[in-house]
Amino acid sequence: MIIDCHGHYTTAPAALWEWRKKQVAGQDPGPLRISDDEIRSSLEQNQLRIQRERGTDLTFFSPRAGSMEHHVGDARTSEAWSRQCNDLIHRVCSLYPSNFAPVCQLPQSPGVSPQNCIPELLRCVTELGFIGCNLNPDPSGGWWQAPPLGDRFWYPLYEKLAELEVPAMVHVSSSCNPAFHFTGAHYINADTTAFMQFLTSDLFKDFPALKFVIPHGGGAVPYHWGRYRGLAQDMGKPPLKEFLLQNVFFDTCVYHLPGIELLLKVIPAENILFASEIVGAVRGVDPESGHYYDDTRRYIDAVPGLSAADRERIYSGNVRRVYPRFTRRSRAISSS
Amino acid sequence: MIIDCHGHYTTAPAALWEWRKKQVAGQDPGPLRISDDEIRSSLEQNQLRIQRERGTDLTFFSPRAGSMEHHVGDARTSEAWSRQCNDLIHRVCSLYPSNFAPVCQLPQSPGVSPQNCIPELLRCVTELGFIGCNLNPDPSGGWWQAPPLGDRFWYPLYEKLAELEVPAMVHVSSSCNPAFHFTGAHYINADTTAFMQFLTSDLFKDFPALKFVIPHGGGAVPYHWGRYRGLAQDMGKPPLKEFLLQNVFFDTCVYHLPGIELLLKVIPAENILFASEIVGAVRGVDPESGHYYDDTRRYIDAVPGLSAADRERIYSGNVRRVYPRFTRRSRAISSS
Repeated sequence: MIIDCHGHYTTAPAALWEWRKKQVAGQDPGPLRISDDEIRSSLEQNQLRIQRERGTDLTFFSPRAGSMEHHVGDARTSEAWSRQCNDLIHRVCSLYPSNFAPVCQLPQSPGVSPQNCIPELLRCVTELGFIGCNLNPDPSGGWWQAPPLGDRFWYPLYEKLAELEVPAMVHVSSSCNPAFHFTGAHYINADTTAFMQFLTSDLFKDFPALKFVIPHGGGAVPYHWGRYRGLAQDMGKPPLKEFLLQNVFFDTCVYHLPGIELLLKVIPAENILFASEIVGAVRGVDPESGHYYDDTRRYIDAVPGLSAADRERIYSGNVRRVYPRFTRRSRAISSS
Repeated sequence: MIIDCHGHYTTAPAALWEWRKKQVAGQDPGPLRISDDEIRSSLEQNQLRIQRERGTDLTFFSPRAGSMEHHVGDARTSEAWSRQCNDLIHRVCSLYPSNFAPVCQLPQSPGVSPQNCIPELLRCVTELGFIGCNLNPDPSGGWWQAPPLGDRFWYPLYEKLAELEVPAMVHVSSSCNPAFHFTGAHYINADTTAFMQFLTSDLFKDFPALKFVIPHGGGAVPYHWGRYRGLAQDMGKPPLKEFLLQNVFFDTCVYHLPGIELLLKVIPAENILFASEIVGAVRGVDPESGHYYDDTRRYIDAVPGLSAADRERIYSGNVRRVYPRFTRRSRAISSS
């Protein structure tokens, strides 16, 4: 079985974006009207087709990352928008429970304690069966005004995540800062930044059971694994495997074979979760390979010397271990 | 011959940092008093010893990057400080002309047109024989308030750099933003960000002869080379090799063999310049290899299948091509 831990509903029906447009403009957007058929059609020609074509089985599915836009409006804006987006994800996963597992957006807002996210998190997880969440380390959208992820600012949310056994994918939203192209710089920088924030903190002493997934192959981290091992060593920290890799995992959204080879060479297979981010940042066909850049399964299958056991870990074993609620959900679905 | 294109005077005598402390405190720091013997001793046990131990011949030498601190004070502060730092680099390179070639700091200041850097650039290049400069894409020190590098804001400086045939290494300074650890996040993010700023601009149409070196192995870029090729393609840009690689080069400050292998696999050898950043961000010995993390020559020598011609390009051929003033300086020194 092949589980993709990183997919966003980038193809949601136009009514969702219309609703948002009205909300941002300060108009009453009214109830969101999207039919089940509209949801089906938005998925059939996109994510479901791609799953079939690439032989992947299930995608962890969350609202479009670039549209979380935590910097827009205030905490109430963010709450109402997150609720709409999460409800839509719930509908997707109810229509296709074997193809998608729900991951929620949190109603973060710049300068607001992430404690405000707990009610929506609880609603999603305990009422609607969500199995994970996306956590934005920079709700200001490219201005990086929030305290680092090791700061106690984040602890109320971490307590709840640990208690609920819900991992967080560290994922920024769009960038308002003209210095940072959103999918080409802001996303990748955020991954690198988050890892360094973990490295310079004692977060996992306080929350030994908390789990984070760093997407996009961990940003620059695996490429600079020697640098990070050396920086930790200079700071008198334990080796990274002991210090961070019980809690931090990387996905495989790296869109060429040499990058995936590096990832699998330096990061233990136990810490790698399969992902492709369909339908995501890069949509074209690589003229060098003749295949889609984001068809990451091909790269993993092409890595020489990867054992069957490690391949199984990357495709499904690790994700079941990291996301206990996904495992319980799968059991419930298959026995129903 | 092995030329290291990226070294900073991190071991400068204490009097320099005392001078700076007074300047920042608003006291008159008076003239900087450092003897030639103090300079010699600051280098003999550090950079010169390391050159001998590792068999490298010459280092491009610039003021300590983390101390450029363009965000401190105003443009006049930055001008006086840059002048002191550059004069000291000039003294180093006059004492050891065969071991060091001078690269200057620019007196950038947040919100100030980089036009203000031209007098100091001219002084360094035309009077003191400097062969390159460091350009900080974020003089605000981690708040990223400057326009992207493709913006016309930077053009007055680019015109002068192109005219003088002086390449710029894109290098940030320290980070005042608690989100960004300086050597673990800010440096690497800046490299990634700069590349994406080039990718989304038409800068090299306007300045076909301008050359940039992105340090630290290009940040996250080579690891995500498929992503960048795909993003460029989705934007209708030419292939990256044609579009950017006539103007953009990467150094080899990547502190483990798998990272260097990746760099050499995806980036053409013509675009890679040897560097180790001694004495720099990572100072320890890697227990996995038994050698210094930043002994990058070992990694390059260990890459299987690297041809002698490509090795020569990376160690010295490219740098001579990219830095014409270095080549002329070398000729002048060897004929004197």
